[in-house]
Amino acid sequence: MSTSSPLNELLATLLERRPFQKRGEREGAISDLCLALLEDKTEVSGLQTARAILDRYQDLEPGQLIDFFTFLNDDLDVDADAISKLVELYMIENSASNFKQLARASEPHRQELFRRLNEVSGATAELVNMRADLLEFLKENPVLGRTDFDLVHLLRSWFNRGFLVLRQITWDTPASILEKIIAYEAVHEIQNWDDLRRRLHPSDRRCFAFFHPAMPDDPLIFVEVALTKGVPGSIQKVLSDQRETLDASEADTAVFYSISNCQAGLAGISFGSSLIKQVVRDLSHELLGIKRFVTLSPIPGLGRWVEKQDDKNMLEDKANLKKIAAHFLLEAKKPDGKPYDPVARFHLGNGAIVHMIHSEADTSGKGMAQSGGAMVNYLYDLKKISQNVELFGNNDTVVASSAVRSLAKQAARKIPTDPT
Amino acid sequence: MSTSSPLNELLATLLERRPFQKRGEREGAISDLCLALLEDKTEVSGLQTARAILDRYQDLEPGQLIDFFTFLNDDLDVDADAISKLVELYMIENSASNFKQLARASEPHRQELFRRLNEVSGATAELVNMRADLLEFLKENPVLGRTDFDLVHLLRSWFNRGFLVLRQITWDTPASILEKIIAYEAVHEIQNWDDLRRRLHPSDRRCFAFFHPAMPDDPLIFVEVALTKGVPGSIQKVLSDQRETLDASEADTAVFYSISNCQAGLAGISFGSSLIKQVVRDLSHELLGIKRFVTLSPIPGLGRWVEKQDDKNMLEDKANLKKIAAHFLLEAKKPDGKPYDPVARFHLGNGAIVHMIHSEADTSGKGMAQSGGAMVNYLYDLKKISQNVELFGNNDTVVASSAVRSLAKQAARKIPTDPT
Amino acid sequence: MSTSSPLNELLATLLERRPFQKRGEREGAISDLCLALLEDKTEVSGLQTARAILDRYQDLEPGQLIDFFTFLNDDLDVDADAISKLVELYMIENSASNFKQLARASEPHRQELFRRLNEVSGATAELVNMRADLLEFLKENPVLGRTDFDLVHLLRSWFNRGFLVLRQITWDTPASILEKIIAYEAVHEIQNWDDLRRRLHPSDRRCFAFFHPAMPDDPLIFVEVALTKGVPGSIQKVLSDQRETLDASEADTAVFYSISNCQAGLAGISFGSSLIKQVVRDLSHELLGIKRFVTLSPIPGLGRWVEKQDDKNMLEDKANLKKIAAHFLLEAKKPDGKPYDPVARFHLGNGAIVHMIHSEADTSGKGMAQSGGAMVNYLYDLKKISQNVELFGNNDTVVASSAVRSLAKQAARKIPTDPT
Amino acid sequence: MSTSSPLNELLATLLERRPFQKRGEREGAISDLCLALLEDKTEVSGLQTARAILDRYQDLEPGQLIDFFTFLNDDLDVDADAISKLVELYMIENSASNFKQLARASEPHRQELFRRLNEVSGATAELVNMRADLLEFLKENPVLGRTDFDLVHLLRSWFNRGFLVLRQITWDTPASILEKIIAYEAVHEIQNWDDLRRRLHPSDRRCFAFFHPAMPDDPLIFVEVALTKGVPGSIQKVLSDQRETLDASEADTAVFYSISNCQAGLAGISFGSSLIKQVVRDLSHELLGIKRFVTLSPIPGLGRWVEKQDDKNMLEDKANLKKIAAHFLLEAKKPDGKPYDPVARFHLGNGAIVHMIHSEADTSGKGMAQSGGAMVNYLYDLKKISQNVELFGNNDTVVASSAVRSLAKQAARKIPTDPT
Repeated sequence: MSTSSPLNELLATLLERRPFQKRGEREGAISDLCLALLEDKTEVSGLQTARAILDRYQDLEPGQLIDFFTFLNDDLDVDADAISKLVELYMIENSASNFKQLARASEPHRQELFRRLNEVSGATAELVNMRADLLEFLKENPVLGRTDFDLVHLLRSWFNRGFLVLRQITWDTPASILEKIIAYEAVHEIQNWDDLRRRLHPSDRRCFAFFHPAMPDDPLIFVEVALTKGVPGSIQKVLSDQRETLDASEADTAVFYSISNCQAGLAGISFGSSLIKQVVRDLSHELLGIKRFVTLSPIPGLGRWVEKQDDKNMLEDKANLKKIAAHFLLEAKKPDGKPYDPVARFHLGNGAIVHMIHSEADTSGKGMAQSGGAMVNYLYDLKKISQNVELFGNNDTVVASSAVRSLAKQAARKIPTDPT
Repeated sequence: MSTSSPLNELLATLLERRPFQKRGEREGAISDLCLALLEDKTEVSGLQTARAILDRYQDLEPGQLIDFFTFLNDDLDVDADAISKLVELYMIENSASNFKQLARASEPHRQELFRRLNEVSGATAELVNMRADLLEFLKENPVLGRTDFDLVHLLRSWFNRGFLVLRQITWDTPASILEKIIAYEAVHEIQNWDDLRRRLHPSDRRCFAFFHPAMPDDPLIFVEVALTKGVPGSIQKVLSDQRETLDASEADTAVFYSISNCQAGLAGISFGSSLIKQVVRDLSHELLGIKRFVTLSPIPGLGRWVEKQDDKNMLEDKANLKKIAAHFLLEAKKPDGKPYDPVARFHLGNGAIVHMIHSEADTSGKGMAQSGGAMVNYLYDLKKISQNVELFGNNDTVVASSAVRSLAKQAARKIPTDPT
Repeated sequence: MSTSSPLNELLATLLERRPFQKRGEREGAISDLCLALLEDKTEVSGLQTARAILDRYQDLEPGQLIDFFTFLNDDLDVDADAISKLVELYMIENSASNFKQLARASEPHRQELFRRLNEVSGATAELVNMRADLLEFLKENPVLGRTDFDLVHLLRSWFNRGFLVLRQITWDTPASILEKIIAYEAVHEIQNWDDLRRRLHPSDRRCFAFFHPAMPDDPLIFVEVALTKGVPGSIQKVLSDQRETLDASEADTAVFYSISNCQAGLAGISFGSSLIKQVVRDLSHELLGIKRFVTLSPIPGLGRWVEKQDDKNMLEDKANLKKIAAHFLLEAKKPDGKPYDPVARFHLGNGAIVHMIHSEADTSGKGMAQSGGAMVNYLYDLKKISQNVELFGNNDTVVASSAVRSLAKQAARKIPTDPT
Repeated sequence: MSTSSPLNELLATLLERRPFQKRGEREGAISDLCLALLEDKTEVSGLQTARAILDRYQDLEPGQLIDFFTFLNDDLDVDADAISKLVELYMIENSASNFKQLARASEPHRQELFRRLNEVSGATAELVNMRADLLEFLKENPVLGRTDFDLVHLLRSWFNRGFLVLRQITWDTPASILEKIIAYEAVHEIQNWDDLRRRLHPSDRRCFAFFHPAMPDDPLIFVEVALTKGVPGSIQKVLSDQRETLDASEADTAVFYSISNCQAGLAGISFGSSLIKQVVRDLSHELLGIKRFVTLSPIPGLGRWVEKQDDKNMLEDKANLKKIAAHFLLEAKKPDGKPYDPVARFHLGNGAIVHMIHSEADTSGKGMAQSGGAMVNYLYDLKKISQNVELFGNNDTVVASSAVRSLAKQAARKIPTDPT
């Protein structure tokens, strides 16, 4: 390749002369721009070409999107023949230069393309959105998994935990960020700004989010916390606009009642476990009276699981709901042996245990539908997290309090545990 | 691999129970800790193991360092056999799953190790320093170039231009950063805090640095700028403590008189070109009177080049020094055809041209020794940067002003241009 | 006076031992606390006594409030006999010591009380609120004007223009400040957070507020600005949620469409003129395309004035409304010769001129009621502000554009200009 | 007075047309400008006139300065006749309007002048410097005490404790502020930036300063603190560049070893007591291990006092120096009964007690000269501060530890306690 390509020359000139060029005006297909960017050795026009590609991307129609992803997947793939030859050489002599040739050949060109795009100010968020788009097509085009693998590989590197910044979200946070909290809340919808204020402003409420320095206005994940006396058993009470505020210094329990991922494009790159652990650590230092860290979590799998049972009205048996839920959480499994309930998998995988179960805990339409109103507290005990992670990771052991185990036993005989 | 390894279990327990454990106390070799970190699937003990590895690394003696790097290079290398088999499979069917297997096998385990180490808060700076150590050994152990390639690969990704932050360094900057500016200045030494103040505080002085969000207190590179009337031809005048301050609004020229890279561990990852271009852009907007962006640069290669000539006293010919320097800059080449002078290669590669040459421009001992006191202004003309980059990149063409070309011609007949 | 008063001693001890004492628990009347604070020479218990007074004040019932203000007015007044004697002495010898005695006697004790209260962190806002309370009683108890005079005297000193900070209010401003903007908007009500967003976020909208460092979360006054092409003649169009956003760089006009004072307790201490002038200066520098600074103002006096005329249906004469409004603005006066309309007095006093008049400009219920829907643009021409202020200040001359003067003339013969 | 004064009109026009007018160019004496500023009712030209007065002030020669202060003192004084008449009226009827007339007459015009000058951005610092100038003249012109009284009156109001901001000074503080700390240190000179770093950067060192929002770059007063194990008895050991750093969490004592006022123009407006108390409070919360707050203070009065004794060589009696110093601190008094030593007066007045006395504690030339090398620890015991203040304030009682009292007794018989 040579930097003297006429296209490249043209681009550089064009771009430098028209700094405020409108989007989409540039000649040439987006794929040509990508090739030009990969060819560019000068860094001069590189940023402008990259900016143009990102702008052009915004304007692609669905049909063009699939073409673009296919271009990335096929035209910018690895050269398997080259790898094959170079690995032979490396087996003969594992010198640094043989290694470098092999390493360069082993990396698809699209990785370099993504890296160059990311040099543009603000591009990181756009690449996250590109991944979100890609995920849409992935279901029907599994072969695009090659491109997805590379993009995730880079995103994981860029969103390295060491780069993330924990910030408390308060009523003093800029409105431009708060409106995103409202939009991203995925568990218990925030109705309006008054509802948001009730979750941020009182002395017994906290909210924390992870941010990346290249996306300072856009949270990656956030958790909402209630400080309480005792372990709460009703989300409606926690969120009530009638409730009395507790002085934070009098609280003995911190309740994670909602965790929301904000970026669809970062699916599969998990921040939740780090967030919970850092918040546990920070709150422990700030509020010496807090003795207990629990969640107040939905049981979204319960309804789906009951659907598959003979007795589909099980959730209407209010008297036995807690027993059924306990039994479900401890015994209902996926074919791989992990718990059937996704929220259970998340918290148990983080080292929490099943602590308490409540009926009439989420009486909203959604809550009644997904679990007959039952909710569960998972307990994070810093001293036992490692041990729990080991037990769960190695043996799929679900650790639970004796109260929950006892509840589960009372229900156990009546219900088949494997829904399949 | 399995997370139930006794080592892993031990580590997790030990680490959680002794949060303030002193450095170096932990049992086990650093290589065992690295293997344990790679094995860890839980993220629980991961951060603590990573922290322990970094601490242990600090305490390694030189002999242990080479062992550690050799461990990374050999034990955590790719499995060439696996690549060989997987690339065959991929040639048969380029499915996403075949691709992923191949991609995973193509990445040396040390890359994953570096990534996990980088999850620790503050680790980025430590990995940069690890690379600096590695570079020391590389000369005598070129095979370590494999590990160096991987580490650079990751550093380049983490220090992506889109993540860098340009900050002006002023007399209002925290002293903790200013002391680093003093320490890192590599071109014209900063004598003391008064000297620093003279370079930052007056209305006609500027300084800009790139920072990375994960190393907010440590500049990566900085440039010092003087605002002048006309193009200056003496660094001593620019730095004089007797000079009169110019009101910034009256300046017509911005002079880059010193650029210093701060991090030895980032050698080969270039920020200078981006820095100069962004500063040119920012100053153009801030100071509408600036018509010209030049450097006032040393010619460090001139003395070395003259050494190789028959006439070793050439630099003492004050009357002809400018001609000799012009001739040198335009004609003296490395075997690959690029200019012999490293500073010339940097600025010409960025798209600058050779603008003016001055004798008696750096009368310090260093200045006299390296170039007989001669210095050069490279000119950055935003409108022609692209074109110059092309010309230099493709044809090694050194663009110069007619004045410099004329000077060079007057000297040209007398001196062999190729020192080899 | 002596610091050994038992009350004082008791207070100091009590206060130091009970740092978290609840409000209102303390023994003794608020007036006794005030006397104790004035007696205190130690600064030790002073802050705590002051804090106690402010807390106690919060709990006073209306009947107790009037008692408290009467105490300030009478018990903490000047000693006229002392002044009389000391001024005689000063007339005999104007020495520094005679001056100081006289000066001390001339200052009512309540001034020192207010100053000491203000030493408490956060007290400034509480004293502003105390003034707001006082204003309520002033109407029926004009003699309290003595205390009001002293409180205003100090507030004017504390809220010195040199201490005020201009801040832009944007969609990135903390929600805790934005909710105050919503609450304080007095001209065109902000319906909800979406309405607020429309006034802050688009490229062609601006909002600026003055803050005092001791009340950093509470604006004193703010102005909302629309950037437009041409002079707008309808507030509904300016505030419409359907309107198209203009790029700020294309605007030629900045429109002050709403100015709201936020602190009732600062009535009579004017910040509006400074605010408008500083915003004009700042916007002139930021947006070089702005050629014209106008208001879009209500004419609240027009309706009241028409009420007093024979023809009370005048505002329904749509065809002639602009003429009537022009005539009113130029000719209708208060007995002191100043314009009858309060908004006109404000802007003309600041050096603006009457620039354009519009009918159907505010079609809200409030707008129709107060002026039949008419509004007016006042024009701020930086070059003529001084001259206009002189003309208006000395001769009550209302400067107007020729178009407005011409409109007024057409109406002039039919309507008596003095409503009294 | 009338705003139509030609001077005023001229000024307004001139000023608006020449926004970048150079200093000192304006016609008219500074006194005329002051009169014009007082006359200005428009606020339009006010700020510019005020700015011009402040600029003109900068250029005054000493002879002109005394003229200017005399102008303020005499021409802008109160009208005693008017006061005399108005106070009679007020005695007859203490109405609000009579009060206001009297109050206005009782305030010298110079106060309004100072207030209007202070409306200019940055003027506060200039008025503080004006007071510093005035103090120079005051000694020889005591009658200027009238003007000084008024200026102090306003400065006290503007520098109200409630407006001051406590900031920690660290090695991360801007260099522009740190250079002022170096310049202002009045007790134990800071030699250079390395010395400063040793006082700020180590874990066992702290520095705190009060700032005013209108002078954000200029500290008003600062205190340097050492965290130690035990009570130190040598300033050279505290400041040694050889000493070992203590981990802050292991310290049991906080030592205030230097307090410096920064603004000569604020003499007589005391911030030291507030600063010490707030720092005691803040450090108590931050470092739970701190059990004791002491000073390590010079005894500057000791040498002067010994000078007046018969035995002028008393300080050379090393064996008895501590006894002599103890005796001096407890018994040597000024005619008004307060301690002879000014540092003792300050700390005892704040509620501290004399805790320990050390010889060979300050072996610098200054230390040997002023007290034969002796130093003293004053102890701040939060629980007893009030009581100590009472005792000292009412009865001039100097509270001391039993050890110090015992030392003093051993020396007491031999030395006359009243130097006069």
